[in-house]
Amino acid sequence: MEIQRGRITVKLVLLRHGESAWNRENRFTGWTDVDLSPEGRSEAQEAGRSLEQAGFDFDLCYTSYLKRAINTLHLVLEQLDREWLPVIKSYQLNERHYGALQGLDKGETADKYGEEQVHRWQRSYTTRPPLLTPDDPRYPARLAAYRDVAPDLLPLAESLQDTVARAVPYFQLEIEPAIRAGRRVLIAAHGNSLRALVMYLEKLTPEAIAKVNLPTGVPLVYELSDTLKIRDKYYLGDRKKVAAKMQAVADQGRATQSA
Amino acid sequence: MEIQRGRITVKLVLLRHGESAWNRENRFTGWTDVDLSPEGRSEAQEAGRSLEQAGFDFDLCYTSYLKRAINTLHLVLEQLDREWLPVIKSYQLNERHYGALQGLDKGETADKYGEEQVHRWQRSYTTRPPLLTPDDPRYPARLAAYRDVAPDLLPLAESLQDTVARAVPYFQLEIEPAIRAGRRVLIAAHGNSLRALVMYLEKLTPEAIAKVNLPTGVPLVYELSDTLKIRDKYYLGDRKKVAAKMQAVADQGRATQSA
Repeated sequence: MEIQRGRITVKLVLLRHGESAWNRENRFTGWTDVDLSPEGRSEAQEAGRSLEQAGFDFDLCYTSYLKRAINTLHLVLEQLDREWLPVIKSYQLNERHYGALQGLDKGETADKYGEEQVHRWQRSYTTRPPLLTPDDPRYPARLAAYRDVAPDLLPLAESLQDTVARAVPYFQLEIEPAIRAGRRVLIAAHGNSLRALVMYLEKLTPEAIAKVNLPTGVPLVYELSDTLKIRDKYYLGDRKKVAAKMQAVADQGRATQSA
Repeated sequence: MEIQRGRITVKLVLLRHGESAWNRENRFTGWTDVDLSPEGRSEAQEAGRSLEQAGFDFDLCYTSYLKRAINTLHLVLEQLDREWLPVIKSYQLNERHYGALQGLDKGETADKYGEEQVHRWQRSYTTRPPLLTPDDPRYPARLAAYRDVAPDLLPLAESLQDTVARAVPYFQLEIEPAIRAGRRVLIAAHGNSLRALVMYLEKLTPEAIAKVNLPTGVPLVYELSDTLKIRDKYYLGDRKKVAAKMQAVADQGRATQSA
């Protein structure tokens, strides 16, 4: 951390995992625990190289319960030669839960429900996808990973608002005190759990966050004061590559951005 | 956990990492952070399969600050589809520190100091290898991984007794309460830090622990009462393979067992 004008500046890095097997198949993923594709692993290694080349180091790492984010973090730490850093996993940083859409092909879903409905599920701040029923094998309360979580905290499907309602309080209670104390934090997570944090950090409205898409595998750096005031914000890595990634995200359309 | 005769029985699993790059080169490793060899990765995956086939599950995992142990644990968790389990890394579970011998070829060391001296360094309970000097780049207080540890806790070289003196109190303070509460613990660590725990759990004398060698990549299961009384103890995996591994360990001689 650096002292600037008498105040601490601390860097927080958010990293969205790269391509998973289901991204490639264009299926709604949500809390489904699919792994990175080989391309996704390369993206994570590239993110690690960017952080290394820019001289980044960390005190504390956070990730979700989902292996595509966990393995992204592991690949970054390997690249940084920092396997020994503490890693805290929390389901509150999981991707938005996509309810009964999880596992469905996005094209088929559009055929069945109509493009407009799918668009609403993806981009509305408050609309939930079709809910799982509690007897559905996809219901998190039935999965080993969530056996220690109170079942009434576990979603049947989430709007982005619901994701914000679990990710932001976790950030405030668990991560923010560390940042305020000057600890350098890396969070490897998902498109929507990270959008929730971006919304909070940048004080965005629901309308504004709808237009924010994070490129995969590109470290997003916030330089923050000890009261979490944003001093600077930038993406890390080769400018051309980052620009190309952001263009690719835009070209893919919104469907793959929100699952 | 199971209730037996009115008392809880909980399983504790110790796992020694498999072959590292330096095992292969027959060099003293200690706290040097070398990674697993491809063979070592296979051993870890095989350990994961054994645990999976025997229906093991865990609540809490511990490992050292060294990537050969950390990656062994990650490979086991991948095999068990349990990437989301909490993992706590602590330097107290590191391998015995081999002081100024770290990085030296074992044959050369024997030529220089004599077989008998090398044997004493390896098998004596109280003899320390030649100490590092504090300005040595290998001194842990000079390494990023130990920047948050009080320097006077960091070794210049360790006897097995020294390793016991850091690993056992850590076990007693941090791990034992979890076991007593019925939590299923997996510890992925090193030949000597695990021998320290075996000595403690089995109440062995220094003479008795000198004869104990743990095979690499074979889960060692303790079935314990809630007061850590040993109800049963066994290695997991194909009996022939485990027997062959233990024979290989014996055939290699003691040199590679204690570094």
